Amino acid sequence: MSDKSHWTGDVAELLRVDHGFRLAEVDPAATPGYDGHKKAGEAELTAGAARMDELQERLYAASRSDATHASVLLVLQAMDSAGKGGIVRHVMGSVDPQGIALAAFKKPTPEELAHDFLWRIEKRTPEAGFIGVFDRSHYEDVLIGRVRELAPAEEIERRYGAIVDFEKRLTDAGTRIVKVMLHISHDEQRNRLMARLDRPDKHWKYNPGDVDERLRWPAYMDAYQVAFDRTSTTDAPWHVVPANHKWYARLAVQQLLIRALDDIDPQWPAATFDVETERARLAAS
Amino acid sequence: MSDKSHWTGDVAELLRVDHGFRLAEVDPAATPGYDGHKKAGEAELTAGAARMDELQERLYAASRSDATHASVLLVLQAMDSAGKGGIVRHVMGSVDPQGIALAAFKKPTPEELAHDFLWRIEKRTPEAGFIGVFDRSHYEDVLIGRVRELAPAEEIERRYGAIVDFEKRLTDAGTRIVKVMLHISHDEQRNRLMARLDRPDKHWKYNPGDVDERLRWPAYMDAYQVAFDRTSTTDAPWHVVPANHKWYARLAVQQLLIRALDDIDPQWPAATFDVETERARLAAS
Repeated sequence: MSDKSHWTGDVAELLRVDHGFRLAEVDPAATPGYDGHKKAGEAELTAGAARMDELQERLYAASRSDATHASVLLVLQAMDSAGKGGIVRHVMGSVDPQGIALAAFKKPTPEELAHDFLWRIEKRTPEAGFIGVFDRSHYEDVLIGRVRELAPAEEIERRYGAIVDFEKRLTDAGTRIVKVMLHISHDEQRNRLMARLDRPDKHWKYNPGDVDERLRWPAYMDAYQVAFDRTSTTDAPWHVVPANHKWYARLAVQQLLIRALDDIDPQWPAATFDVETERARLAAS
Repeated sequence: MSDKSHWTGDVAELLRVDHGFRLAEVDPAATPGYDGHKKAGEAELTAGAARMDELQERLYAASRSDATHASVLLVLQAMDSAGKGGIVRHVMGSVDPQGIALAAFKKPTPEELAHDFLWRIEKRTPEAGFIGVFDRSHYEDVLIGRVRELAPAEEIERRYGAIVDFEKRLTDAGTRIVKVMLHISHDEQRNRLMARLDRPDKHWKYNPGDVDERLRWPAYMDAYQVAFDRTSTTDAPWHVVPANHKWYARLAVQQLLIRALDDIDPQWPAATFDVETERARLAAS
């Protein structure tokens, strides 16, 4: 960390979705627990990258020796343009790609739709030693699924409980689940989508369907609120990260990941061979 | 690129395995085509990272619009400790993780062994728009496979032709295959393995079996030579990258990848919607 950190509070606690949480009361332009500005935040992100890098390597190393079955799973959900890609690039991009398992969930394929909604998710859960990242996730099935009525109401209802049970199994087996909603304002989304229209090299990121979803903004906010109410558990709580300031969102998610890794506290595994014997063998080779 | 590049020759040509190539004649401590030292090389690697980053995003964008089926596949082979991991980390680590598909091939599982040796490989070939990286590959099946006689001699013989046909199919379908052997000297390997023994936080990377393989060094060099003779084709040539200097190996592999991406020359796709219409819809939303 840098000499003077601008963190004034515990970000995991400040952003956690607890009983009584109201999404409507969150200010997407706020920077909870942080009293610095962009420049300080970026410097702190760089310092945090070195810390994450070491923790990730320790986690990977520990898993190779059967010393731990621990893994981390970052679940990213957000409205379009809220910055999921930037998190992957600027937060995950700073650690060794060999320790990251990234899964981007798009519109389900016919094969995926022929199975339970968690079938494709289960296949992409991180193995021990890895940091998994879900760019969208099983929550789509209770977000767009609910807003667009892609399944009967009772099926949507069933899914909340199924998700809680599924995540409980993962956490019991050693996965720390970090669930993040990146929260931007309605106006900020308009600005960001407009900026894509202004740059020909960003046109490929623009999809007219994004505006169709944008027109259902209130329904999405309701769907998020219900998902939070039903699936923010002690073992796998949600965190709502204000994301109008990209630098803050990245820094906050990095802190949440460092916290998860610190909780695991992975140690370098002890040698399973005699070091002096090996030194002699090597020298003679 | 930096103001004055120290490249004095075409690295793709200088390192390519052509007819008459002899591995035994390659100096692992050389820096072919580059007359700078470590510091200049590292600065050039940073400059190259920005170039690779843009090309990778263009490639990904182009593939989203069906404008191209192109992809890149980096195949990394080497003796232990030659620096495969460093390439993944320092060359691939500089581009957006969302555009990279990394596959590390370990000892085959029973399920993999119950299929043809290319079965597990086919499943991990990069989709359009991606840069795939094979950390070890189907070449293990003619390297350790040959040295350790893991398959009958006639089966090993069959595999060279099967590999050439397989790679031809991939290149015909739009994949640029960049095949790299990182080449360190026998002495350099001893130094690097010894360094792992010297540091408790590196013990997990040390495996006594590595010394067993080291004792078969000449047989491995022969197996590499045969693989080069049989599988270095016009469409998918091998490159032998001297790797005693890690900075050179990274820079050279980066150059080979930039060359492959430049060959594809991916363009930002044109908008598939009317920009003004979308601007109006967005403004009204």
